[in-house]
Amino acid sequence: MRYILGCSLSYNILSDTTFIFNLEVAKLKSVEILTESLVLTPNLKRDLYTTPDHQNRYLAVNVPTGQFALEYNAEVDLTVHRADPATINETPIGQLPLDILPFLLPSRFVSSDRLTPFALAEFGALPKGYGRVNQICNWIHEHIAYQPGSSDGETTAHESLLKRAGVCRDFAHLGAAFCRALGIPARFVSCYAHGLVPSDFHAVFEAYLDGRWWLFDATRQADLDGLVRIGVGRDAAEIAFSTPFGNMQPVNQQVRIQRADGQGSPMPRTVDAISTEIPAPQSGAA
Amino acid sequence: MRYILGCSLSYNILSDTTFIFNLEVAKLKSVEILTESLVLTPNLKRDLYTTPDHQNRYLAVNVPTGQFALEYNAEVDLTVHRADPATINETPIGQLPLDILPFLLPSRFVSSDRLTPFALAEFGALPKGYGRVNQICNWIHEHIAYQPGSSDGETTAHESLLKRAGVCRDFAHLGAAFCRALGIPARFVSCYAHGLVPSDFHAVFEAYLDGRWWLFDATRQADLDGLVRIGVGRDAAEIAFSTPFGNMQPVNQQVRIQRADGQGSPMPRTVDAISTEIPAPQSGAA
Amino acid sequence: MRYILGCSLSYNILSDTTFIFNLEVAKLKSVEILTESLVLTPNLKRDLYTTPDHQNRYLAVNVPTGQFALEYNAEVDLTVHRADPATINETPIGQLPLDILPFLLPSRFVSSDRLTPFALAEFGALPKGYGRVNQICNWIHEHIAYQPGSSDGETTAHESLLKRAGVCRDFAHLGAAFCRALGIPARFVSCYAHGLVPSDFHAVFEAYLDGRWWLFDATRQADLDGLVRIGVGRDAAEIAFSTPFGNMQPVNQQVRIQRADGQGSPMPRTVDAISTEIPAPQSGAA
Amino acid sequence: MRYILGCSLSYNILSDTTFIFNLEVAKLKSVEILTESLVLTPNLKRDLYTTPDHQNRYLAVNVPTGQFALEYNAEVDLTVHRADPATINETPIGQLPLDILPFLLPSRFVSSDRLTPFALAEFGALPKGYGRVNQICNWIHEHIAYQPGSSDGETTAHESLLKRAGVCRDFAHLGAAFCRALGIPARFVSCYAHGLVPSDFHAVFEAYLDGRWWLFDATRQADLDGLVRIGVGRDAAEIAFSTPFGNMQPVNQQVRIQRADGQGSPMPRTVDAISTEIPAPQSGAA
Repeated sequence: MRYILGCSLSYNILSDTTFIFNLEVAKLKSVEILTESLVLTPNLKRDLYTTPDHQNRYLAVNVPTGQFALEYNAEVDLTVHRADPATINETPIGQLPLDILPFLLPSRFVSSDRLTPFALAEFGALPKGYGRVNQICNWIHEHIAYQPGSSDGETTAHESLLKRAGVCRDFAHLGAAFCRALGIPARFVSCYAHGLVPSDFHAVFEAYLDGRWWLFDATRQADLDGLVRIGVGRDAAEIAFSTPFGNMQPVNQQVRIQRADGQGSPMPRTVDAISTEIPAPQSGAA
Repeated sequence: MRYILGCSLSYNILSDTTFIFNLEVAKLKSVEILTESLVLTPNLKRDLYTTPDHQNRYLAVNVPTGQFALEYNAEVDLTVHRADPATINETPIGQLPLDILPFLLPSRFVSSDRLTPFALAEFGALPKGYGRVNQICNWIHEHIAYQPGSSDGETTAHESLLKRAGVCRDFAHLGAAFCRALGIPARFVSCYAHGLVPSDFHAVFEAYLDGRWWLFDATRQADLDGLVRIGVGRDAAEIAFSTPFGNMQPVNQQVRIQRADGQGSPMPRTVDAISTEIPAPQSGAA
Repeated sequence: MRYILGCSLSYNILSDTTFIFNLEVAKLKSVEILTESLVLTPNLKRDLYTTPDHQNRYLAVNVPTGQFALEYNAEVDLTVHRADPATINETPIGQLPLDILPFLLPSRFVSSDRLTPFALAEFGALPKGYGRVNQICNWIHEHIAYQPGSSDGETTAHESLLKRAGVCRDFAHLGAAFCRALGIPARFVSCYAHGLVPSDFHAVFEAYLDGRWWLFDATRQADLDGLVRIGVGRDAAEIAFSTPFGNMQPVNQQVRIQRADGQGSPMPRTVDAISTEIPAPQSGAA
Repeated sequence: MRYILGCSLSYNILSDTTFIFNLEVAKLKSVEILTESLVLTPNLKRDLYTTPDHQNRYLAVNVPTGQFALEYNAEVDLTVHRADPATINETPIGQLPLDILPFLLPSRFVSSDRLTPFALAEFGALPKGYGRVNQICNWIHEHIAYQPGSSDGETTAHESLLKRAGVCRDFAHLGAAFCRALGIPARFVSCYAHGLVPSDFHAVFEAYLDGRWWLFDATRQADLDGLVRIGVGRDAAEIAFSTPFGNMQPVNQQVRIQRADGQGSPMPRTVDAISTEIPAPQSGAA
């Protein structure tokens, strides 16, 4: 499926600020980038870096005092891998590729070590496989209120559980935390999300099952087969769309994605399991 | 300098357990591994993985119920890079290599976001450079009691600060947290440590200054130029010497390092700045 | 019902220590103290204080270095007030006696403010009254494992919820926290508990409903009509059976209660609502 | 000294709300209330309660949907007890009146148990007495930034220490926490504070030394001998000026105090130790 997507950001820079952005579409086999443009105003020097493990594309810019704007536009063709959820099993820890280890461990916002008793008590006895992770998403959807403003940049998964509220970032952290606590590798994914209303940067998580990373969205707010990946990491700390070092104020932020054929979401949401790893990966860290 | 080092671990396995070990010496240009042996009893199948970014060597073993022992021995030749601390400046964030970004961000145990006000208040006004990180180590050494048993595997840097106590792991987390809070990249390092009494796995941290990673040990318990690296990571979660998944009991743990020439530490501790990156690195993530 | 009860405590005093004990039976209308003795060895000077609001009996003793033992014995006649749970409603906040206010507020271990979203989501829609508090106890009994050693003296109610484990102290804190979060006054009660195996000091909570304090025990381990109150307070901080200031080691602790007629618990546990306030109180703080 | 003081509060009531106010001047021997008026608009039924232990005056009002306003005015004559700080010693725990015990224990926001290592390390070796508590205030004043908006109603003393910022409430909580951690009874005091700019409800703490409660203000923002007490309690939870149960919005809040003779604060701040207990108390809980 083809998508036209992008974002427009502007800032009021109060003192020299270094920005590290992660908002360009990741270069994956499943995503053909047909056209792409990134405009900085003023047109400052760019420092680019693509991580060798996950193809996250970081952009660093040193911005002087004044106004600063960034506009990114792309047209992409997204191919997803689909499967019947009932056929997807968990991979025993002893058979996991070792490069996946970081996604079993607790991280700053995915406090899986503190949530282990909770995860075991709620989900420990469920049949293993894709269905168990889906149950985790159902549980989160049922128990956590989607509530803008209910969390901030320091909110961890276990705090969201106590607050019973959060935004997409928190839903993804909590889903990933429950998975890791159960021995299922899980990672945080930022993306452009078709079907998300209102449009914004979105966060979901992926769980590693049967040799492949599968997408899950506990918020149930976007089309699983319409998520165009920006970055993947242990949690939100690693792949914030904008990490500023300096004194500045965000002025405007607009995020957009639409089907290139102009259609909306005429069909009901998919019930397939969706992965952006095509074809079958040789290793878990693609 | 040549060292003979190693460890002996044994476990009582109560149910099938997958171990992920990280205890072999990292393969760095600064460390020539002259001889090396790793014996498992029973001699189970080994799954090996060396991370491409930091040369951490992970070993996974699936162990059945019963007794299990591991013995590692190596003789290595360590070459360190030395410099005069007074000549080492901080690298402005806008000039940092982008592959170093993860070491500026908060992680599970290095809760630098929660320690930012504290770090700014205590160290924000100090002259920038190696000396500032050294002052951080002095502060920690003065304010935090080295107290075995005072922390556990869930203890974070900000909790150690409140408890005013910790072990090497906590000293390294707190040092790294203060650095990151000030915009200085910092990472956690596990090692065999000459001069440490009693001998054990040791943890220190490295700060990235003037284009290179420099070693710091806030515990002041080992020789900075006698640290043979095992692993490097965001924090202790990533490079635990043993991460078991299953039901088991540690029975015995013995860690050793001595100079190959049989000498002790006849000379006073070095006052040089020490790095294990030789020669000058092209990038920060060596 | 008549009970013979008491406790024997001994300590190894390493430096001069001031103890504040709260282990004598509270002097309530519902409890006739037939005989009572308190022996200190050595026989040190006693400082006694009974709180005017709740009749908690505190005993302070300054103990020099050496051995110290305390033995308390009493025979009491306990009369309880019984009612049909179905007839007991909640008291609207606007009609509560004002001296009950402290028991609506968060306290050190009853972190009701942090548990408000959780309480509202789980129990907010239940029919109000005794039954709702009973449902809270059922929920705790079902979701929290009774696990000696799983908590310590700093564990708060919201931490017990995350850990899914605790002891009687934690069950009472969590029950009280959910109640306060819902606007139901609740307080912490320490007691000698008939039916508790193994015998020990016990902790339960009371909720204020329909003008009276009613007993609840989320652990389901003791007879509600066999609880002889020692103290009542906001939480465990206020009525620890022993609060030592100094350097000492507990050596032995034995707690006992049996029916004066020598019978055990032949009858099934009561299903009545039980209060130790007799007759109907004039005010909430009896 | 005579003061004219009062407050005006107004609310937009969105659903039936029960308010519990604690804003009338406490009836102490040291405070002669010359005139006093409390006007509610509309003039709803009042439920009044004065705590027998501390003379806190609570006012409960059930307010229907609509507008609600409260205006309180009083003229009072405040007499304080003064002493030379150098003459005031600490009272050994073994000699404390037992009714003071609650003020040695941790409470919801005065997390003295978690701050014990910090307090011992920073203040444990200082000479005992008024001077030590004064040093605690100096330390707080130096290390914690007074920063409106930096805390909220759930902020505890140990969190303020990490954030290095707070408002009067947090300064008082932290001061009280350090004291209790050192075995010095301390309590939270709300008051009308002469000299505070801008005028608002103020919070300070009292420490129990040499048989009497002494005022301390770590914010250094008001005149110690110009504090007219409203309430005293374990912490802010107990004596909030307004505790609403229901759905409402504060609209306006104005607090005022001036000398009845129209003078400002012509003289420098007092360096005396100040207590509002006159004459010498018979017991600690006056």
